[in-house]
Order: sequence, then C-alpha cells, then structure tokens
Amino acid sequence: MALKNLRENSYPDWYQNVVAAADMAEVSSSPGCMVIKPWGYGIWERIQRMLDEKIKETNHENCYFPLFIPLSYFQKEAEHVEGFAKEMAIVTHSRLSMEDGKLVPASPLDEPLIVRPTSETIIADSFSKWVHSYRDLPVLINQWANVVRWEMRPRLFLRTREFLWQEGHTAHATFDEAEKEAETMLNVYEDLCVNDMAMPVIKGKKPEYDKFPGAVTTYCIEAMMQDGRSLQAGTSHFLGQNFAKSADIKFINTNNEPEYAYTTSWGVSTRLIGGLIMTHADDEGMCVPPKLAPQQVIIIPIIKDKSKAAEITAYAEKLRDALKSQIFAGEKVRVRFDNRPKEAVDKMWEWTRKGAPLIVEVGAKDLEKNAVMFRNRIHINQDGWKNFEDVDVFIATVAEKLQTIQDEMLARAKARLDGNIVTDIKTAAEFEAYFANNNVYLDNGGKAPKVAFVRGKWCGDEATLDKLKEMRLTIRCIPFDQSGSEGECLLSGKKGATLDVIYARSY
Amino acid sequence: MALKNLRENSYPDWYQNVVAAADMAEVSSSPGCMVIKPWGYGIWERIQRMLDEKIKETNHENCYFPLFIPLSYFQKEAEHVEGFAKEMAIVTHSRLSMEDGKLVPASPLDEPLIVRPTSETIIADSFSKWVHSYRDLPVLINQWANVVRWEMRPRLFLRTREFLWQEGHTAHATFDEAEKEAETMLNVYEDLCVNDMAMPVIKGKKPEYDKFPGAVTTYCIEAMMQDGRSLQAGTSHFLGQNFAKSADIKFINTNNEPEYAYTTSWGVSTRLIGGLIMTHADDEGMCVPPKLAPQQVIIIPIIKDKSKAAEITAYAEKLRDALKSQIFAGEKVRVRFDNRPKEAVDKMWEWTRKGAPLIVEVGAKDLEKNAVMFRNRIHINQDGWKNFEDVDVFIATVAEKLQTIQDEMLARAKARLDGNIVTDIKTAAEFEAYFANNNVYLDNGGKAPKVAFVRGKWCGDEATLDKLKEMRLTIRCIPFDQSGSEGECLLSGKKGATLDVIYARSY
Repeated sequence: MALKNLRENSYPDWYQNVVAAADMAEVSSSPGCMVIKPWGYGIWERIQRMLDEKIKETNHENCYFPLFIPLSYFQKEAEHVEGFAKEMAIVTHSRLSMEDGKLVPASPLDEPLIVRPTSETIIADSFSKWVHSYRDLPVLINQWANVVRWEMRPRLFLRTREFLWQEGHTAHATFDEAEKEAETMLNVYEDLCVNDMAMPVIKGKKPEYDKFPGAVTTYCIEAMMQDGRSLQAGTSHFLGQNFAKSADIKFINTNNEPEYAYTTSWGVSTRLIGGLIMTHADDEGMCVPPKLAPQQVIIIPIIKDKSKAAEITAYAEKLRDALKSQIFAGEKVRVRFDNRPKEAVDKMWEWTRKGAPLIVEVGAKDLEKNAVMFRNRIHINQDGWKNFEDVDVFIATVAEKLQTIQDEMLARAKARLDGNIVTDIKTAAEFEAYFANNNVYLDNGGKAPKVAFVRGKWCGDEATLDKLKEMRLTIRCIPFDQSGSEGECLLSGKKGATLDVIYARSY
Repeated sequence: MALKNLRENSYPDWYQNVVAAADMAEVSSSPGCMVIKPWGYGIWERIQRMLDEKIKETNHENCYFPLFIPLSYFQKEAEHVEGFAKEMAIVTHSRLSMEDGKLVPASPLDEPLIVRPTSETIIADSFSKWVHSYRDLPVLINQWANVVRWEMRPRLFLRTREFLWQEGHTAHATFDEAEKEAETMLNVYEDLCVNDMAMPVIKGKKPEYDKFPGAVTTYCIEAMMQDGRSLQAGTSHFLGQNFAKSADIKFINTNNEPEYAYTTSWGVSTRLIGGLIMTHADDEGMCVPPKLAPQQVIIIPIIKDKSKAAEITAYAEKLRDALKSQIFAGEKVRVRFDNRPKEAVDKMWEWTRKGAPLIVEVGAKDLEKNAVMFRNRIHINQDGWKNFEDVDVFIATVAEKLQTIQDEMLARAKARLDGNIVTDIKTAAEFEAYFANNNVYLDNGGKAPKVAFVRGKWCGDEATLDKLKEMRLTIRCIPFDQSGSEGECLLSGKKGATLDVIYARSY
C-alpha cells in the first residue's frame, strides 16, 4: 500500500503526500497558512512538552508578549540592519464597516501595527524597563507563540506565513555568561533533536554573512534530509551588546558603573516537524519516533464472527489498560483502542501511514492463544514487520520495544548522516563535479548518483558567495570540530584555506 | 506591609495594585495589549495543563487553525447576525517599504485579512471539508490560541485587545448528542473553576437576548467577585444546525439522507486569571490556590552570621529536595529555594505579594532545632500565619497542608458566594432600593452597605431590558435549578413571573 508518490520519483511530491496521508496538516483557505490537524499537532505538543521541560530545567521562565508591534519599533532596525526583512503582515485598521452591503476596513490606526515576525524588539523594550542593576540579571525568559512572515511560496511545516515556535530571550551582566547561554541552548536543541526526535545534527556556527542581523555569533544545528539537503533545525544567537544598545538595556554593574547588558535569543519552530518527516518517513507514509508519537500503540480488533465481538472487545480493552500502566521514557505508554466502525485493514493502513510505532491486531485466534499479532512500523519492508507474541510478554516488553524502535530510528538517521558527508573532495574542480549531479533521494540503492553534504575548505572570502549562489549551494555551518589543517578553498580554488565548513543544498 | 490601595477604598485601584505587586502582568508598549510575566503566565500554564487534561479525557483532540481569516468569511455573518461585532484588527498590507527614510505599509492585499476574534468561521470551513458521512462524526477538536478584539478600555487580564484562550468546536450527527456535549463542557469548566481554581460558580443559561449570536442555547458559569460583581468565567454554546447551515457542514446520515450537522463551541480565556485575583487576593497581594501555584513552597534562607551560610544553604537544599519528592494532587510538590542576593525580609514580602501558599524560613536556630518556620499565606491576618514545626513533620505533611489551603480557599469563596445571593427581594420596589446602593467590597465588616447578586423573578419580556440598563445591571443567567414558583417580576413589576434569574452588576 505504498504512497502514490515515491521518494525516488519526486521527493517534493512525496513530502506533500506524506503530510496528507498521515493527516498531519492541510493547506488552509487562509492564504499561505496551514491547518495543523490532530496527529500533526499532537507531535508538536510532544515536542513542546519535552523542550519546555528542558527550557525550565535550564532556569528559564515562560512569559507572553504582544502579537502586535508598533511600526516605529522597526524603523531604527530597518535603518541600521542590512538585510532587514520587509515581508510582514501589517494591521492598519481596527474596525469593519458596512458600505453598500459590503464589509470594508474602517477606523485607520494612528500607527500601523506589525504582526510579530519575531518578538526581539518588543521584548527588548520590556527588558529595558525591567533591568536596572546587576541584581536584576540574568533575565531568562521564553515564549511559545505564533509568528508571521509573508512567505510567497508556502510549504506545509517548512515555510508557512504563520508558524508556531518558541523564542528565548535572555539578558546577562557579562559577555562570557551570555556567550555561554547561547551555547547552552544550542546543546538543549541538540538534545531535543537527537534524543527525542531521533534526528542527528551537526553543530556549528554560521559564517559572518549568514548570521542573524545584529548577532555577534549565530550558532546552529543542521540536519540532513533524505534528499541530501540540509534543514536548519534551530539557531541560538549571541547578540553581544548590539541589541542592548539599540533598545537601551542598561544596568549598574558591580563597580557601580552603567553598562549595556549582553543578550541572546534562540528558537525552534513547527519547521522541526518538516525535518522529522524528511528524516523518518518512508514510501508508506510517516514514521513517528516513539517519544514523540501522540499514540505509541494502536490496538485494532479483528472481528470476523460477530458473535465473538464482545469477547474480542473485552480482550482488547484489557490489553489497552495493561499497556497504559507500563512506563516508557518516564511516562505512561500512550495506547489507542481503535474501535471505530471501519474495516480493520483500512484502520491498519491508516495508522501505518500516520506512523504509529506499534500496531496490534487482536482477533478470535489471538484470544484462543492468549497472544497478539503486532506490527513494527519501521520494519514494514523487513521480516520483523509482523510478529506474534504471548500477550503477557508483549505487555511486559512494550516499553523495551518502544525504546528499541527509538534507538533504531536514531541509528538509521545517524548512519545516513555519517555516510553522506563527503570529506575527500580536496579541489574546487572536484567540488563542482560533485554538485553537478542533481539531488536525489539518498537511500535509493545506488540507482542514481547522490549528493549530500561536503565537508571541505573555505577561504572565508565573501567574493566566493557568488560562486556559491551560482551552484545553488549554501555554507550550512562552520562545525565546532575544526581540523585546523590547510587546503584548497573549494569555491575560490585558493590554497592555504583553513576553515572547515559544511557545504550543502538547503531547505 | 499592606498594598497602597486597599479593597475598601477603591476596588479597581486595588486590582491593578495586586497585578503589579504580584508581578503577574503589565501594560505593554503595544497599545491595549499586555505582557504576561512569569508568575502570571505560570498560573496560566497550570490552568492550561489541568484543563487540557480534562479536554482530552472527554475525547477531544487539539488542532491549530490560522490566525488570519479572509474578510469574506465575515460578510455573510455580518449580514445575518444581529449584534455582529465589528471591532477587529485588519491586515491590509504585506510589506514595509522605505519612503523618504520612513517605513510605510506597501503591497496591499487583494483581500483584507481579519486577525481572528474567534475561529468559528475558519474552523467551520474545515469541518465542511472533513465531514461527509455520519462515520466522520463526531468531530471533537480544541485549539489553544491568541485572539484579538479591539477593546477601547483595556484592563489587565479582564479586557485586553489580545488575549489567550482555548476554543472547542465540535460537530455531531444528532441534536441530542450536540446538546449533551455543550452541557458536558460546561461541567468541565465548572470542575476547573471549583476544584482547581477554588472559585465557585453558578451554572445556568443566558437569556435569549444575551446568547452568542447564532446559538440555540448559551450555557455559562458565573463567579462572584469580592466587590459583588459577576464575572462570566466560561461559556458553552449549543449551536444547533445554524452554523452548519451557513458553513455547509453536511453529512449523509444513517438513513442515507443529507443532513446538516449539529455543532457546539466553548471557551475560557486568560480572563479567568482576573477572576482568580478578584476571588482570592487580599490587601497584602495575591493568594494563589496551591493547585495553580507555579511554586507552592518557597524556602528563604536567613543568614545573619555569614560563617553559618554554607550550613544553612545545605540545610535548605536538603529540605527543598525532600519537599520536591512529596506528591500533592498527583504531581511533585513545586518548591523554590530562593537564594538570590537580597534581604530575606524583602524576599518574604515579595512571595507574600505573589501569593505563594507556603513560605518557609530557615536560619541558624532552625538548624539547631531541626525545625522550620513557615508562613501560611492565606492566614496572614490570623494566628496561623507564622508556624514552627519539626522539619520532618513539615516534609511529611506538606501535601496535606497544601490540600487544606486549597480546601479553605474554596470554602471561603463559597461562603462569600452563598452569603451574598439575596433571595428575599420580592418586589420591583425593593429591588430598586437594593441596587441604589453602590457596589462595595463585600468582606468589609459591615462598614458600608453592600450589594451583590439578587436571585429573583423575571417576566422574560425584553421590554424590561431598558430598565436593566438604566440600573446598570445584567441578567447573569437563568440558573439550572429553577423553583417553578410564581412571583413579581423585579424589573416590570408584573405578577405571575416564573423565571428565576440572577441579577448582578458585571465585569
């Protein structure tokens, strides 16, 4: 029951197909926006819950700041920040009026309001009121919110006009403490991606030209999608005193002198779900890592003989309750007994497309044998897909099974990442030849040439950026682990380049 | 250390004072919007968590729908719905452009977008696509979101242009099932208010003239504030087929005939926090019911002799860890060891104003005696405010103490509600005399006349509404428990009125 669109034929079509088949989200009648449906939103809730715990464990508190930001707050930024993005939703009126039977905007605002593309400026405004002395520092806050950027080519989860995210904003008394904070939060994101999402990442910092406007350093984590392209999974910015100066966040330091605070900001968004899909989904649909699955075990009753219905239902309910009392990753196992009036086979494929980790079927024969038949979603094309087991054994080992699936998903994704970072390209000529191939789905069994990440030298000269653009490439990051060796810059061909960077196509 | 503004002097000033003193929220530079600060947002997170569990237990799933709704969606509603609210934020442009050094709106939209005042119309649009057969029903969804209504006289938590809420929307195959759903969710709200927020409510339905536009029935819960005014704490609407007809939510029923679905919607918002404050706060600041307190126990070290600092800190940390392993209301006790470099007395008053239920002080003497001194926030003006106890006893009984505080807060609020519903007003003349008094703070020890709720007769004639308006009153609800007796309508003076209603001033 493979999807209509396979990865090796058209990766973008396959992506859209997975989102629809797993019923995770859909295009909305509101232009460029998405409706996040229960299965997709349930995954986001799991990401939120797990990340929120980590954010709180690192001593941050949640707040909420206004959706609307007065236009004047952007004026100074626009004047000083190169690459200031101007695509934003602008509120200009506060009333509808009926004219000739048609509703039209009325009551123009004195000052237009911008629907927040990020809350940097409005939060900085609050910080400037909150911070007076070193005793008020650090300020460590986070916000879960919707933000809006006027994307012209929306794609579900990856790029929509409205998306959901968290944005952390902190202010500190010293340069070092703020720099450390930005790194700490990058590590928190890495922990989320690797240990919860089973999505390995490369940690590093952005080259100068690609930093967040106004940042001293932009740290990032980059994940490899199945088509060899990179997805920026999260960023953490060390802003130095730049934002504090423009927002006047000043404090009296321990020497009793006024000083500008050192700030950071960091965020991840519903884009992560796009990354999750392109890391784990297959030609049958979505596969959700157990830690993120809104339902980890689905029980489907197989009722061929109606006279056995009550008995099978009772057996399934007992199984459900027993599974629910098991603990996986510190929480009760999430189990759904799917007794909707639909054909069992349709339900089975529905949950397969959604990517529930374990699907259990119970019928008259299972009752007799006190057994279950369960399917391991990620083994769909392997022998381990269908398994028969004693029901008590299944219950007792369900947490272990979920952990094994979680581990195996990470191992698969890690093998893909590790196996597709090319490190032996040493000249600009070889580099050009490599990326002359088109991006294709990586796990295609060698049917087509594949391109993914190249880890190689860069001279750091911004004159090379034209070449990069021409090759439709980006420098994803300067990884933390630098070799320090010298070599030929893969863009300019200059010798003596020392910087190791990750070159890749990107989302 | 009472607040500057006391309840008996000016209740509205006192309210603002509490919000500021407890550091729960502040007015934002974004006009009419608020910044919800960590202590206020922490309370909202608790409300969210507890309500979300109840929403899921009643088989609803969370989704997310777009912030922006095309103007055309409101056109039909505006034509047909009397009392259609026109105060909304309207997005008309999608780009900023720099002209003569000034940022100005550019790129006008083809169709203006409304920032959702509620998602009724856009969710109904999705339902019309999702529902085809009785097998697709019921659809039971909920959304946590921000919404915007262009309030002209904003007040923190009670009335701001942007606020946070949840909105449930459901579609059903039968009238009865949908009506039952609306009642079920009213009960869920009652459970939240009474058992988690310690805020008793009166359940009933709104009179015809005050229903949600388009609803068949609007159910509501009403809470009594300390100034005798009523706060609508939540509403649940049974919409019949009205919305299904206008949004074309149609299904093939079990008789194989097309039929319009029956829908409901229900919501509560950050306004609940305003209700919480006006139910529990006192002249010293906020009091948070233990179940909602972001921190339930605060530990403050008292270090007079610096040589004892390490020992006291170790003692406090051990106490914190022991308390954290205790379970209250199914969760680990939330404890904060406040070791900020501030005076202990200032910290004590800070947490008192915030309304943390238990504040523990540990100093050298406590160490010696293996004891603690704890303050019970709600007993601040009673003997039980300061208590000395053996540390092991304190740890072993902390959950019990929190439960006692929770129960006592509910009992106090219930006594206020029960004691201030006047039921012996039998004539329009008595009624007018009663409300000729000004509203004052109820627990003022008889220093001034007080007015609160009157439970009395209403003839149901809408001609009486002018009188109601003139008296600055509202009919809060028609309570579920009707006596059925006859009497004089307290507005029109007509005899033979049978409807029991709650009359009150309101927020």
